[in-house]
Amino acid sequence: MQRYFINENDINGENVVITGKDYHHIKNVMRMRKDEQVIVCTNKGIAYLASVEAFLEAEVCLKIVNRLEDKVELDVEVTIAHGLVRREKAEEVIRRLSELGASYYLPVTMERSIIKVKDNENRKNERQQLIAKEASEQAHRTKVMQISEIISFTELLKIAPNYDLCLVAYEEKGRDKDLSLMKLLKAFTKQQILVVIGPEGGFSPREINLLTAAAFHLVGLGPRILRTETAPLYVMSAISYQLELGEDDEN
Amino acid sequence: MQRYFINENDINGENVVITGKDYHHIKNVMRMRKDEQVIVCTNKGIAYLASVEAFLEAEVCLKIVNRLEDKVELDVEVTIAHGLVRREKAEEVIRRLSELGASYYLPVTMERSIIKVKDNENRKNERQQLIAKEASEQAHRTKVMQISEIISFTELLKIAPNYDLCLVAYEEKGRDKDLSLMKLLKAFTKQQILVVIGPEGGFSPREINLLTAAAFHLVGLGPRILRTETAPLYVMSAISYQLELGEDDEN
Repeated sequence: MQRYFINENDINGENVVITGKDYHHIKNVMRMRKDEQVIVCTNKGIAYLASVEAFLEAEVCLKIVNRLEDKVELDVEVTIAHGLVRREKAEEVIRRLSELGASYYLPVTMERSIIKVKDNENRKNERQQLIAKEASEQAHRTKVMQISEIISFTELLKIAPNYDLCLVAYEEKGRDKDLSLMKLLKAFTKQQILVVIGPEGGFSPREINLLTAAAFHLVGLGPRILRTETAPLYVMSAISYQLELGEDDEN
Repeated sequence: MQRYFINENDINGENVVITGKDYHHIKNVMRMRKDEQVIVCTNKGIAYLASVEAFLEAEVCLKIVNRLEDKVELDVEVTIAHGLVRREKAEEVIRRLSELGASYYLPVTMERSIIKVKDNENRKNERQQLIAKEASEQAHRTKVMQISEIISFTELLKIAPNYDLCLVAYEEKGRDKDLSLMKLLKAFTKQQILVVIGPEGGFSPREINLLTAAAFHLVGLGPRILRTETAPLYVMSAISYQLELGEDDEN
């Protein structure tokens, strides 16, 4: 069934009003008629089954049939902070991370990023947000991964205290099991996870020092060297595997 | 340090002879001189440090300095059998699976594959094998993921008994924890794992019936719908996470 992402404010009692591109999609692309059904997902991650009531001039009115209890979102919110990479790589990563259940994607300027940002450049990327929206719909998610504007490494360090667990994917830690990703995830009972992943050239020693000083945990992702576009997928797959496929009685 | 994949037969005592493209690479691209060092990895997954001894007309002679004990390969051999997908997708998957430590990639014709194979088509793909080799080198692996020629679904069923654990990634099983991927991996103590992943259109009901009848385990990869090119990466990440980042004392 077709899914549309709406704002909580678009709901009034049991009525939902959809305008803009999604209105056009329902009316002209899907050519829906009265009583046909869609799924609407709010920005809070709640999904409802809703049926078409009426088409007005530039909006379609839907009536909520019932709330869907399907749990498709992780219990934790995962933010991937990624050293700035080339456009095609970033888009590929955004598509996969959206499928794999990440909540936020923060592009970060790092010392070894090949891509540099000009001072006057628009740091907000509408195209990337659209890719995330489409991938979330296809993955049947009830939430769209949000993409922040490009931030600096200093800004990344500043926001770290907002997270319950701050990790750095660091290849030198590939074989250190004392404080492995698995140990940290198993012990985790809170809400917000931040994972930092370096750009093509990896982290600079200075960046690793700053992250360590800011109490980030350095974790390995196995003994092989993963590319900058593969590491985020490994992390999200591991988080889903541990938290969603793990037995409930596991400690 | 530069890595070259050699055949066990290229070693004679402590001497290694490299010819062909790799000879050209060492001599003309890297412009190496006597006593400079490289890493050679055999088809058995053993890595040696070796130093350049002499250049002959179309070969370079190396002397083994010592065997490297770095363990970069998984203890298990993972074969990913993947419903035939478009060329770009297949190449992307092959690149990532090589990084993530898979041993074999089997492209399989399935009912819902968009791509069809002509009877007279060359079923062996040299280009894909080259991609796997390059990705393995970059990941610092000591083994190259091997890509089989395209096989039929019937052939897939025939080879299944050669494996110790046969899995099917099946989205309908997303929330079934009774026989989860985690339970199966934790209990696994043998060598050979086969994981079957459907093409863009998924498996047909007939295929699922045949796989189930052949004693394959259907496992979910979380509650979201993953694309055919994302599911193999999830599986390999989960296997690495469970077997390489897990504590040794874990049961």
